[in-house]
Amino acid sequence: MERLLITGAAGQLGRVMRERLAPLGRTIRLADRAPLDPPGENEECVQCDLADRGAVNELVVGCDAIVHLGGISVERPFSEILDGNILGLYNLYEAARANNKPRILFASTNHTIGYYPQGERLGPNAPYRPDGLYGVSKCFGEALARMYFEKFGQETALVRIGSCLPEPVNYRMLSTWFSHDDFVSLTEAVFRVPVLGCPVIWGASANDAGWWDNSHVSWLGWRPKDNAEVFRQKVAENTPTPQPGDSLVRYQGGAFVDDPIY
Amino acid sequence: MERLLITGAAGQLGRVMRERLAPLGRTIRLADRAPLDPPGENEECVQCDLADRGAVNELVVGCDAIVHLGGISVERPFSEILDGNILGLYNLYEAARANNKPRILFASTNHTIGYYPQGERLGPNAPYRPDGLYGVSKCFGEALARMYFEKFGQETALVRIGSCLPEPVNYRMLSTWFSHDDFVSLTEAVFRVPVLGCPVIWGASANDAGWWDNSHVSWLGWRPKDNAEVFRQKVAENTPTPQPGDSLVRYQGGAFVDDPIY
Amino acid sequence: MERLLITGAAGQLGRVMRERLAPLGRTIRLADRAPLDPPGENEECVQCDLADRGAVNELVVGCDAIVHLGGISVERPFSEILDGNILGLYNLYEAARANNKPRILFASTNHTIGYYPQGERLGPNAPYRPDGLYGVSKCFGEALARMYFEKFGQETALVRIGSCLPEPVNYRMLSTWFSHDDFVSLTEAVFRVPVLGCPVIWGASANDAGWWDNSHVSWLGWRPKDNAEVFRQKVAENTPTPQPGDSLVRYQGGAFVDDPIY
Amino acid sequence: MERLLITGAAGQLGRVMRERLAPLGRTIRLADRAPLDPPGENEECVQCDLADRGAVNELVVGCDAIVHLGGISVERPFSEILDGNILGLYNLYEAARANNKPRILFASTNHTIGYYPQGERLGPNAPYRPDGLYGVSKCFGEALARMYFEKFGQETALVRIGSCLPEPVNYRMLSTWFSHDDFVSLTEAVFRVPVLGCPVIWGASANDAGWWDNSHVSWLGWRPKDNAEVFRQKVAENTPTPQPGDSLVRYQGGAFVDDPIY
Amino acid sequence: MERLLITGAAGQLGRVMRERLAPLGRTIRLADRAPLDPPGENEECVQCDLADRGAVNELVVGCDAIVHLGGISVERPFSEILDGNILGLYNLYEAARANNKPRILFASTNHTIGYYPQGERLGPNAPYRPDGLYGVSKCFGEALARMYFEKFGQETALVRIGSCLPEPVNYRMLSTWFSHDDFVSLTEAVFRVPVLGCPVIWGASANDAGWWDNSHVSWLGWRPKDNAEVFRQKVAENTPTPQPGDSLVRYQGGAFVDDPIY
Amino acid sequence: MERLLITGAAGQLGRVMRERLAPLGRTIRLADRAPLDPPGENEECVQCDLADRGAVNELVVGCDAIVHLGGISVERPFSEILDGNILGLYNLYEAARANNKPRILFASTNHTIGYYPQGERLGPNAPYRPDGLYGVSKCFGEALARMYFEKFGQETALVRIGSCLPEPVNYRMLSTWFSHDDFVSLTEAVFRVPVLGCPVIWGASANDAGWWDNSHVSWLGWRPKDNAEVFRQKVAENTPTPQPGDSLVRYQGGAFVDDPIY
Repeated sequence: MERLLITGAAGQLGRVMRERLAPLGRTIRLADRAPLDPPGENEECVQCDLADRGAVNELVVGCDAIVHLGGISVERPFSEILDGNILGLYNLYEAARANNKPRILFASTNHTIGYYPQGERLGPNAPYRPDGLYGVSKCFGEALARMYFEKFGQETALVRIGSCLPEPVNYRMLSTWFSHDDFVSLTEAVFRVPVLGCPVIWGASANDAGWWDNSHVSWLGWRPKDNAEVFRQKVAENTPTPQPGDSLVRYQGGAFVDDPIY
Repeated sequence: MERLLITGAAGQLGRVMRERLAPLGRTIRLADRAPLDPPGENEECVQCDLADRGAVNELVVGCDAIVHLGGISVERPFSEILDGNILGLYNLYEAARANNKPRILFASTNHTIGYYPQGERLGPNAPYRPDGLYGVSKCFGEALARMYFEKFGQETALVRIGSCLPEPVNYRMLSTWFSHDDFVSLTEAVFRVPVLGCPVIWGASANDAGWWDNSHVSWLGWRPKDNAEVFRQKVAENTPTPQPGDSLVRYQGGAFVDDPIY
Repeated sequence: MERLLITGAAGQLGRVMRERLAPLGRTIRLADRAPLDPPGENEECVQCDLADRGAVNELVVGCDAIVHLGGISVERPFSEILDGNILGLYNLYEAARANNKPRILFASTNHTIGYYPQGERLGPNAPYRPDGLYGVSKCFGEALARMYFEKFGQETALVRIGSCLPEPVNYRMLSTWFSHDDFVSLTEAVFRVPVLGCPVIWGASANDAGWWDNSHVSWLGWRPKDNAEVFRQKVAENTPTPQPGDSLVRYQGGAFVDDPIY
Repeated sequence: MERLLITGAAGQLGRVMRERLAPLGRTIRLADRAPLDPPGENEECVQCDLADRGAVNELVVGCDAIVHLGGISVERPFSEILDGNILGLYNLYEAARANNKPRILFASTNHTIGYYPQGERLGPNAPYRPDGLYGVSKCFGEALARMYFEKFGQETALVRIGSCLPEPVNYRMLSTWFSHDDFVSLTEAVFRVPVLGCPVIWGASANDAGWWDNSHVSWLGWRPKDNAEVFRQKVAENTPTPQPGDSLVRYQGGAFVDDPIY
Repeated sequence: MERLLITGAAGQLGRVMRERLAPLGRTIRLADRAPLDPPGENEECVQCDLADRGAVNELVVGCDAIVHLGGISVERPFSEILDGNILGLYNLYEAARANNKPRILFASTNHTIGYYPQGERLGPNAPYRPDGLYGVSKCFGEALARMYFEKFGQETALVRIGSCLPEPVNYRMLSTWFSHDDFVSLTEAVFRVPVLGCPVIWGASANDAGWWDNSHVSWLGWRPKDNAEVFRQKVAENTPTPQPGDSLVRYQGGAFVDDPIY
Repeated sequence: MERLLITGAAGQLGRVMRERLAPLGRTIRLADRAPLDPPGENEECVQCDLADRGAVNELVVGCDAIVHLGGISVERPFSEILDGNILGLYNLYEAARANNKPRILFASTNHTIGYYPQGERLGPNAPYRPDGLYGVSKCFGEALARMYFEKFGQETALVRIGSCLPEPVNYRMLSTWFSHDDFVSLTEAVFRVPVLGCPVIWGASANDAGWWDNSHVSWLGWRPKDNAEVFRQKVAENTPTPQPGDSLVRYQGGAFVDDPIY
């Protein structure tokens, strides 16, 4: 790819992906509302608020691929979610529409379906059961992306990220862990296939204890390689045994279901 | 019911329901951003912008049932949709949460699934295929209502209204027509059942040529009585024969799929 | 039919069916553990404990059709259920096997699936969710009948009776009512079809507010005619409005889910 | 319609439809391999062998609608089926392709699925289980029509005719009867809808004891009005009671499953 | 676990598990109707008839986990099945209810679905098709466990054991084999998960030729490791080639479908 | 096997299988319309036109297994397809019926479902969407085989071959490749199982990017070993990058959907 835009590049996941996705584009354009580390070779850094339509439009000019990690990624006051995940997403898609519709990998979330019990296997079409305003805003995002696909042919991978961390650190993540390596290989696959459409993809590694069925996107040719199971012993030793009533072991969204909303 | 709130009461559908739903509550509180006709007996009129959180909270105080017709109901610039259907809906649900959670009938729309071809029968769990920003905003609304149900027990009927007019006036409405009588009887059923939950309900009459399957809500005890078929001859005489390629006869959302977005 | 056996003929439903099913056979043999009213014309009365294998065998001799209403039909100590519904049913099927396998209508129950919420439509293959030992015993009965069908060709209609009363007398029965007329017409259909197999049939009238889907047995040519909806007003006037938390309006099995077990 | 072609017009069903479908077109062109009664007003009669590609092409010139009843409609030596239903159908579709693709109602058959047991409800996508070479040839026809639809946009209604007779004359037809009136109203609906596509439609009346589910074509706005049930008594009086093992009461295809093949 | 109860510990499978499951509990309590080998270190041995309610209650006191292998495990006279698998199971669940509801692994069986043909893949909700009274009794057991779960929160793993032997010894077992190692790892997983519920689990190894789909319990984090395929050559050499009509190669329950019942 | 017949043995795939399947039978009988290389040890060579019924009958005499690769395998004029794939197949099945019904592996094709988009996972019962007359003829073949199975017990494996070549040579084949080794192991499995029935089997290797779900035939005990993914780099280097609109990357049938028909 000529120029790959990564939004949210100053965030926790963004900083990792800044490094890991570098080989995918000749130029990597990095964006965030927060300050970014100075650009390295082949990097461009842009400070930009997603709620600023003009700025977002400029951000997208010249990009032929977007990994959209930007916006809010935990439960926050609705005004922040409104700006970052709703208005911000509309701005991004309008900018993409105006600029040759670069393919988008959209960081959606398992919190769109967080109220399902952990003992239930889900395919991509399970009705939404969001666990907070954050989750609701990602339902909006998936619906928006779908509409831009049907109306304008804009392609998006709707990646419902599980727990994208160096390793699983609690019991629930034995099911939801998404290793950095597997995120990278998924990103490669998403931008490699000639036709993408607008599929829901579960962003999770090949965890023995996983809940999510990706067989509907077998055609991507993506096979996650990591398995949270190898950390089970470590998790058992380092974290308290959860009680059967804990949301952490009852709901797919884990403790998010207990969050208040603002 | 002691006090039934009807929002959007100055709109086309709102004016009809103001009259038709009068028998359902001792007091009917009517609200709209636009001016309302003066209150009749047992009526209260409140001019109120849904984007004004404080005003919406006051509006809901003392109500034990809400028919929410307010907000934007066609394709409009996103800022209007953002205020009326996204921020406005959040305000309404926060107000409901703060005021004993009155049961809500939420006017959703078939435009959440407008891109399905007309030759396809849909149940309540068909994945979203919205046909514009308006439709996307109603996907948001349904997800928000679902979350308030799971997290707080707030009950809502998600009524995906077809074409709620005195009679069908084009070919597509032979399938989507929702008579005023059937809307009224559905409203009665929604507020009559002891337990409602948060079901999707197709808002359509018993049209021979219908596309939507309501068998999953048979337990409501609601049976629509009208049938658009009796108007087929009249529609054929009064409207041009549609071409096979027209969106009007190809998509469930009809001409909405052709609307630009702003 | 030459000789129709009705078991449980001294029970509440049995007494009704003794009268209503009389036209179906040249001779009606009536059985119960309790004393029966003296036989009328074309009637034979037999006092018989289902737990007595020899007696049950004699009871079945010469019958070419059985309506099995016998056994326990509410929550009772397990020893009674064991005798009447488990050992008793085994005895009945062994007797049928030894006596030319007369076709059986087996009175099963909605309490095999009583823990489903009222807002869920069920087909015949919904996994069991029994609401007490009584319900569990009927799961046993359905499984036993199925095995006799597969192994020996014994045909049985597994009729999951809803609420078979003169009229619905509480809110739940607006969904579960099974009128006597509809029971009779179902019985006729069951013994009329040349090939029956071993289907699950929901024993309910054509109630607007029904939960159960009988489309899989459309081939019976049975159409219930009654509709509990006509009693809604009367029920509303004569019974207390149920609270949303009441089992009566939450579970398909109603108050049975609250029964203790012994 | 300007000119409606009816093939197989000298056959049993063809003769009835020649009369009943006359109001649907300004001109009715009638074709058969066998001699036809002389043309009436607005009629054109053409003797034509479907295996003759040139003749079939001429037959279709100038027609804007086709009801294809021609070919073999019972089990016959394969050479006849090959000529009439395989080569003949290819000729018809090539002719349609060359002549503006008039919409086609194709008389398919329940014998494409004849080996299903009578106690099973079928939708349009039940895998084929043909009961003879005739049934196999209609599977070919449905597949051919589907391919012409996908490749060329040729629209066809694949009507799987049950038993299209004045009235049901045996036990099986209580389930499969398709009244002449209902055939006519279906034909009207097929040519009335602006967009047809290539759906499978079960050709059966609204029989209480029916097996086939047409809910997927509710959008046609077609509602059959007749019900074989009113003839049950008559059938019972005039035909021998079938034995449980008879194909007539075991298989949806009835006695066809017992036919030899040549 | 503090104290793990293993019932049926004198049986074929019980003796193996006595040894293999020893590491799972500080104390292992072993029970059987038949005499047991003398207790080893950390073992307690109790001779106990499951039909004796008082004895069963005492047996369960102080246990925090139960592996229930006890009762009848082949086709036997109904009186034995009634005592061991029906009354006995009720006694066990009543004892569990009275004693803090220790989690139970219940040895159910593939003979609950034995009449399915071998060429059919089954999930956990396939309707019962038991192949004898033994299979029927296990349908009872699964229904009973389900009811105790819904009513009292008692958790049970319903493990439908295939063929739990050192190695497969006939053709059918190439599909049904459940290695001792895989039984042990499943037991560990069942007692390790914080929330279990009451799932059906197919008790089979990772056999290439398997029929049963365990994807619905992926969340257990259990992956069987053995594969009967490695024994195919040995089976072919040591056993007669089955005829196509043999139950051994036609039915999932194998020769059980040929067993008489008593 | 005593004598294995391979038809189409002079074709591209036939020549490979002549060599690879040699170990499966004591005698291999090879047939083709075209001249064959002279017979080796244990080989019999027969030149034979499938449209010649008598010749086909003689061909089958004495064979106890058939791998039917004969007939047309690309888009050709309908007359050729009619002779080779329709009349020819009928002749083959009549010959099999007359000669002890040897088990048949029938080379069907993915072109029976070629119009499905590449981003859709298919099971065996996806409705046909053939992409040309060749594909339609294979739909006929599958239906014919099914009918012979139901009516006469003739067993057939309906193998929908993907791309059976030494290695994948374009982008689509990364999904459809069927290695020669995997074809051989499938053939072994098909003739090894005691009961086969008439299943659809997707003829494809274990490709990471595959579309087709073979879980319904897990009971075969067949596990493909090859994976086209190892050739991805090579394909990318040797073939032009496909455009998103190319049939090669849009349809499961690839470029076949663009073929004209004759």
